[in-house]
Amino acid sequence: MREQGAASTAPGRVGDVRRRNLALVLANIGPNTRVTRADIAAATGLTKASVSSLVAELLETGLVEELGVTRDGERGRPGVGLALDARRGALGAEINVDYLAVGVVDLHGTLRSHEVAEAVNHGRRPEDVLAELSALAHRCVDAATASGLTLLGGGLAVPGLVDPARGIVLTAPNLRWHDTDVSAVLETLAPEVPFGVVLSNEANSAALAELWYGHGAFFRNYLFISGEVGVGGGLVIGSELFSGPRGYAGEVGHVVVEPGGRRCSCGGRGCLETVAGQEAILAAAGITDGGSTTAARMASLQAALEAGDAQAVTAVERAGHYLGIAVVSAARLVDLSAVVLGGHFAVLRQWIGPALTSSLDGFAPGLVPEGGVAFSELETTAALRGAAGAALRRALAAPYELLG
Amino acid sequence: MREQGAASTAPGRVGDVRRRNLALVLANIGPNTRVTRADIAAATGLTKASVSSLVAELLETGLVEELGVTRDGERGRPGVGLALDARRGALGAEINVDYLAVGVVDLHGTLRSHEVAEAVNHGRRPEDVLAELSALAHRCVDAATASGLTLLGGGLAVPGLVDPARGIVLTAPNLRWHDTDVSAVLETLAPEVPFGVVLSNEANSAALAELWYGHGAFFRNYLFISGEVGVGGGLVIGSELFSGPRGYAGEVGHVVVEPGGRRCSCGGRGCLETVAGQEAILAAAGITDGGSTTAARMASLQAALEAGDAQAVTAVERAGHYLGIAVVSAARLVDLSAVVLGGHFAVLRQWIGPALTSSLDGFAPGLVPEGGVAFSELETTAALRGAAGAALRRALAAPYELLG
Repeated sequence: MREQGAASTAPGRVGDVRRRNLALVLANIGPNTRVTRADIAAATGLTKASVSSLVAELLETGLVEELGVTRDGERGRPGVGLALDARRGALGAEINVDYLAVGVVDLHGTLRSHEVAEAVNHGRRPEDVLAELSALAHRCVDAATASGLTLLGGGLAVPGLVDPARGIVLTAPNLRWHDTDVSAVLETLAPEVPFGVVLSNEANSAALAELWYGHGAFFRNYLFISGEVGVGGGLVIGSELFSGPRGYAGEVGHVVVEPGGRRCSCGGRGCLETVAGQEAILAAAGITDGGSTTAARMASLQAALEAGDAQAVTAVERAGHYLGIAVVSAARLVDLSAVVLGGHFAVLRQWIGPALTSSLDGFAPGLVPEGGVAFSELETTAALRGAAGAALRRALAAPYELLG
Repeated sequence: MREQGAASTAPGRVGDVRRRNLALVLANIGPNTRVTRADIAAATGLTKASVSSLVAELLETGLVEELGVTRDGERGRPGVGLALDARRGALGAEINVDYLAVGVVDLHGTLRSHEVAEAVNHGRRPEDVLAELSALAHRCVDAATASGLTLLGGGLAVPGLVDPARGIVLTAPNLRWHDTDVSAVLETLAPEVPFGVVLSNEANSAALAELWYGHGAFFRNYLFISGEVGVGGGLVIGSELFSGPRGYAGEVGHVVVEPGGRRCSCGGRGCLETVAGQEAILAAAGITDGGSTTAARMASLQAALEAGDAQAVTAVERAGHYLGIAVVSAARLVDLSAVVLGGHFAVLRQWIGPALTSSLDGFAPGLVPEGGVAFSELETTAALRGAAGAALRRALAAPYELLG
């Protein structure tokens, strides 16, 4: 309140007002809307002259393009349609325990290029992982720029707690990374982009991808649960990621669901990850071939489920049962009635879905209705889409940074 | 963003700026600060002339008083000290399962009058409960006004989900109230007060009382857990109550802590309330005399604990163990490292504290340190202080409502 009050009375703030109004006008221009300057004036309360001047600057940034004259059928007033320019985009990258993924997302939300490489990253030297990721990213960026796209920024998502300001992975137990400085690599992933490359948590980025490019069109408030080797999560409240006081919120993988259960990699006991992470499900299903990768064994699990293997079905249903407990606890604490499941939970939805619904029914009838249970369709692109989308949003919030 | 941008450019908003600046100046005046007009000008960036004019209006509202000339030792500049006027206050009232409580809190946070009446409200007719509460409230208000206090507003806290806008208790299972309209009673509790009387959830109000009049001085982020017949809670994030999309957040009493456990009054199973609520602890301790009230049996429990009764000690330690599970799950989801325990958990702290700490250690080493576990000292006044404090804050946020 103090800052607002002071700003409203202090002199010499014209620059701030112009910056705010540029972002305000831009917020009224979407990927597919053919909005006119007159529409924006009506929506914002700004004068048409102001809007025209602000739009001229936005065209200069390259974020917005004119689509030719459009005629509004209702009012019959012609005007030039404006839309976000699909020739601007951002890089998204993800380091996961068993794969690397990169992609370029444009301002229309289209994935313009995309690469996924299977990898066994658990315990692998960070510099080797990052070198492979850089090579993938450069191929992906080259493909996108060849198609006429200019990069605004980027993001890298990792399965762990991060310090985005310093570019450090604080701890990623399933990679065995601790206090790993990736700031130098961030710069090389997408060199000299105006909005930089920012580090994020994989599950938070996947939750944001769901918000912006998935079920966010239907739910404003939900828990996102990301099933990988680890189990991560993100809380979306009022269509925004709720990241908590220190940025670590949404750690649903370490909600206690089986008090008498096993030790977890976090040092605790009975965490959701110990019964619903990939390794936990594979062990319960009896698919324990140590020679092959987690990804290969997950494929074996799916084959076993399709063949109706009882042990495999029971293992996955058990995971669904415990997922229900974690979802109920989260829904009670944060006041939610929807959950979106990604990663292997989405892949296994046919078997995990009914067990989850039945668990929700038993532990909190009516709290999360069947219509509140959704599965992500973003597969391995979720985290990279979220990381890229965050970079695009940084650009849309500060278009003046692109003016000379 | 749209609203802000529009406000900054739209004409004829002088009234809004004045309202905002009144609240801004008031936010710089505390109960015990002897702040001067010059101090406020320096802190807000407003001119001294503006501050003088705004302070004149605040004196007119009765919320602020002058304390005589004060001299700042550092700068040697004398000025008239300003402070919140302790002759303004608000009524707080609480309906609990086994007691009714009312009190008047002034703008210095002092409880000016206070009454608690034991009662067995479970299943009792709402009109009877409300009539008794009204009588208590009138006595309390009379005592406060006799001492020179003027009421600004009030609040009523109940152990259930509420719709404050309509004055309806949606569901209070431990009272057996459902869709109970208390709007008429709200008005009679403190008739014709400028900021009205507002309905709230008991645990949320107790969490706010802790924030404003208790451990909020030390913690900005914590889970508050209120132990009564039911177990309620409130999440405080960034020194504000986080109430969630629909206002039902913080329901820690229905976090699942014992998946194989008992049915709960909520229709679920294994909820914290089924193992840590008063009735659950009394049953586990073998204190089951059906003839006496819950309050009387809680007194017997305490006597048994003091006598070292093994069954009683085990029952309370078991509650502490399950409390730890719920705290860990909440801390993981919402990113917290502190918990404040009220109600019977505070009364039993000597026995429950070590079990809770050991449970926290086992389920998530290091997540909630020992210094992050605190016990409320507000006893049965917590919820009424929070309800009254909320009314006082409504007044401090909108002082212009008191101007002619």
